[in-house]
Parts: sequence; C-alpha cells; structure tokens
Amino acid sequence: MPDRRSLGPAATAGVIAALGVAVGLAGDACHVASGTTHYDWHALPTIWRSVLWFPLLLGGAVLLAAWLGRRAALPWVRGRDRADVAAGAGLVLALYALTAALRHQPMTVSVVLTGSLAIAIWAWWDPSPGTLAIAIGAAIAGPLAEIAIVAAGAASYAPDADGLAGVAPWLPCLYFAAGAVAGSLWSAVGGDGA
Amino acid sequence: MPDRRSLGPAATAGVIAALGVAVGLAGDACHVASGTTHYDWHALPTIWRSVLWFPLLLGGAVLLAAWLGRRAALPWVRGRDRADVAAGAGLVLALYALTAALRHQPMTVSVVLTGSLAIAIWAWWDPSPGTLAIAIGAAIAGPLAEIAIVAAGAASYAPDADGLAGVAPWLPCLYFAAGAVAGSLWSAVGGDGA
Amino acid sequence: MPDRRSLGPAATAGVIAALGVAVGLAGDACHVASGTTHYDWHALPTIWRSVLWFPLLLGGAVLLAAWLGRRAALPWVRGRDRADVAAGAGLVLALYALTAALRHQPMTVSVVLTGSLAIAIWAWWDPSPGTLAIAIGAAIAGPLAEIAIVAAGAASYAPDADGLAGVAPWLPCLYFAAGAVAGSLWSAVGGDGA
Repeated sequence: MPDRRSLGPAATAGVIAALGVAVGLAGDACHVASGTTHYDWHALPTIWRSVLWFPLLLGGAVLLAAWLGRRAALPWVRGRDRADVAAGAGLVLALYALTAALRHQPMTVSVVLTGSLAIAIWAWWDPSPGTLAIAIGAAIAGPLAEIAIVAAGAASYAPDADGLAGVAPWLPCLYFAAGAVAGSLWSAVGGDGA
Repeated sequence: MPDRRSLGPAATAGVIAALGVAVGLAGDACHVASGTTHYDWHALPTIWRSVLWFPLLLGGAVLLAAWLGRRAALPWVRGRDRADVAAGAGLVLALYALTAALRHQPMTVSVVLTGSLAIAIWAWWDPSPGTLAIAIGAAIAGPLAEIAIVAAGAASYAPDADGLAGVAPWLPCLYFAAGAVAGSLWSAVGGDGA
Repeated sequence: MPDRRSLGPAATAGVIAALGVAVGLAGDACHVASGTTHYDWHALPTIWRSVLWFPLLLGGAVLLAAWLGRRAALPWVRGRDRADVAAGAGLVLALYALTAALRHQPMTVSVVLTGSLAIAIWAWWDPSPGTLAIAIGAAIAGPLAEIAIVAAGAASYAPDADGLAGVAPWLPCLYFAAGAVAGSLWSAVGGDGA
C-alpha cells in the first residue's frame, strides 16, 4: 500500500497476530472441508471449521516468528512493505489451500509440488540466509508441534495423509513458506518506524 | 517487451479487446470442457467451445475496465509495460483454468484458493486503492451480469457450482483478479504515448 | 543469494547440470507416481523413480540451453542472480509436478493451465525476444526428443495423455518454461565473472 505511516509495537503485533489467525482459519477450513484433518477434541468453541485453540496457536506462532525475526535484526535482502504482505499472505494461504486440493494425489506429487512452490516463495520473498534459517526452523518446529497435538488426541490427519509420524509429509513445506514470510513481517507491517 | 513504441488509441483499444477475447475463449473452453458451465442457447455461431456472445462480451468488458482506469487517471503504484501484460494475462488465464481444474473440490477449498491467489495477483500487479476499487467493482458487476445471463436462460453452471444465485461462488474472485489487471491495461499496452 | 562470488566455467557447468538432474528426477518421480509416464526399458539402473538415462539427458539438455544462451550473448532484459535461480527452478519444477497433478483433468484444462503459467514464467523471468526464441526452441526440440524416445520403446505416456504423437499435449508448455529459465542460467549461476 502506498500508505507508509508507521504503526506502534502494539498495533503491529495485533495486525500480525490477526493475519495469522485469519490465514489459519481460512486454510484450516480447507483442510477440514477436504477431509485432510479432523478435530477429535471439541471442549472449546468452534469458529468457522476450527476449534478455538488452532487459530490462536497459529496467530501466536506467526507473531513469535515475526518477533524473532525482528529481534535477530536479520540482514534482509529485500525491503518488504504492506503491499508485499498482502501478496505474501495470499501466496501462503494459496499454498495452504492447495495442500487441501491435492488430497487424493500421490504423496510424491503433493510433496514435490508444495516443496517447489515453498522454495519459490522463499526465494521471491527474501532470499537471505537469515530468512532461510527461520523458514527451516518453522519447517521443523511446526510439524513437531502438530505431531504432539495428534499424539495428544486433539486432532488427526486422514489415514492417507499421516505418513510423517501422524501428520502430512508435505507439512514441513507449508511451514517453510509460512516461516519465510512471517520472519520479516514486523518491519513490513509496522512500516518505517517499526 | 523491450519495444516501447507507443500505440495510438484505436490500436491500443484493439489489442486490449483482442486480449479479452483470447483469454475469454481459452478460459471458457476450460469451463465447458470440465462441465463447469453449459450453453443453453445456441442461435449464434460457436467459436472453439464458446457461443459468439461470450467472448465479445468479455472483450468489451475488459476494454471498458481499461478505459475506466485510464479516464480515472488512477494513481498507480507500479508502472506496467507490455511484458507485464503477458505475465498478468497469463496469470489471470491460469486462475480461470484453475477454477475449471477445481471442479470437484469442496467449495470451501475452491473459494479460498482462488480468493487468495486473486489477492496475490492484485498485490503484485498494482497494490493501489484505485486498482482495488476497479477489482472490487469487477467482482460485483461481473457475477451480477452472469447471474442475469443464467436467469435469462442463455447459459448455466453445473448443479454443484451454482451456489451464488446460479453462478459459482468463486466467480467474484476470478473477476477481482481480472479487473485488477484490466484496470491499468491502457497505458501498459499503449506504451508511453497512451 | 547475497553471495556474488563468481564461479569458474567448470563449476558453473557442474551446478547447472546438477540443477537439471535434480529437477528432472523430482519432476519425473511425479509423472511416474501419477501414472502419466511409464518406463518400458530397464537395462540401466533406476534412481528414485527414473531410469538413469532420463536425468542425465535432462541435465545435459539444461546445460546445452544455458551454453547456447551464453554463446548467443542474448540481450536479456533482466539481470538474474542465484536467488532468482532458486525461484525459477522452483517454479519450473512446480509446473512439472502440476502436470502430474492434472492427470485426470480434461486435456483442454491441462493445456490452457500449463500454457498460461508457462507464458507467465517466461514474462517474469526474462521477457526478451532472445529468451522467447530459446523457449520456443525448447518447446519444439524437447517434445520431438521425447516422441523419438517413445517411438524407440524406452518409455511411454498413459493412453489418455499421449495425444501429441505419443507424448502429452501439454509437454511443449513445460519445455517452453524450462527453456526460458535455462537459457540465461549461465550468468545467473556463474555470477558476475561468468
């Protein structure tokens, strides 16, 4: 957006968390609609198609990645602004929905397609070693968290999409792309003053 | 393209209308081939898989959007040239064909996937409020026109893709992306002198 | 990547050939997994899902295209670096995997979708007449080579994907995109000194 007025830290954090919640709700609705994932524990209220803990967890995770990226003062290659955030969030959500659309494809096809798009998203968004480190961190931490959630019995992946210790084999690719974009959200959302 | 020779108004209008006709024919062929849409009125000749009125209407609509964008002298954020037109038209046609490929997906998946890609196309092409206004206008006017066409009995959407008053729920997303690109086609196609 | 240290000719050629082999192996694994293609001659060892000659041939073809592009000293419109190579290779591999995911789509949909994305990849990567020439050359030579391979009995396409003299009708689109990117790999991979 042409508007480059800077936001304060609280407003920046709020926008980033809301973005994570929104992308999480829309992407998760695709996974539930396609039968890729299923909620097994329903003690909390359901929003759209997600049980409350999921969008909150995702919003928190996106905020954490953005905060870590800001704290590390990574040497980004590209300066990203709010218009780029719309493009980046749109592409990550598209990749999320694509994994739902690939529901009945051979796993080789799903993993290669989401993996190659994740690499392209990272290389377009910010092809720096720092962003690569955050993307790899997200590709490890995200699936590990979901493996714990599945093991705890709160949710499950479909039998033909649970080949990675109970979660989908393409899940690291999705977290890789999300982590790459999330890592530099703070200055992109906050503007020059952030 | 490196060639920046400017075109006169008539040639510019002709190229833009031809682009709309070409994208409309190829995209519509996908919708007919996938069974997403069906022509019910055949009094006019058929070109490829479309009855004549459809590509003409689409070419006229693209020309109208480009003319409105030029008349409004929108404050575009990005200067687009003919090479960008090839990329923009390619992406809009790809989104058109994708809606055909998503034929048997859950509607949640189709709408989230086409919607997130439409936002990314707008944010990449020209993330300005003026382009957003034209995209939103197209996302309202296009589906309304198609609802009227369906109500008049000239064409119809498949029973599992007619949930928005007779047309597909993802149709506004497709028109959003097309409107975003079409709105600044005049100067991009016409060159510096347009 | 921020690293702009130049590579010597041998290292540049090695990286380019390895990139072609890697993309060929991953993309071919998708085609074999989806049943799009099938190996009929198994005298050589199999790597992942490919018989040895295929990745070698593809690595050689990518290297040849890069060498031709360098020799022709094409007037590229955009200077591409190693970060762009990651994005370009990612998108070409994604298009490769997409053709596997489109396995049971109507051929009109597959051809229009891969064709429009191939045009967008060319227009984004380097919208110059020289790159267009290499892309068209690849779109002709690649399918001709595969037609000869199929005629020789070494491999075959599925009966519903062999409409272009034994190979898939969308194959020229895939080679078009691959050729566009491969044509300017030499200086992009080699760095300033290449």
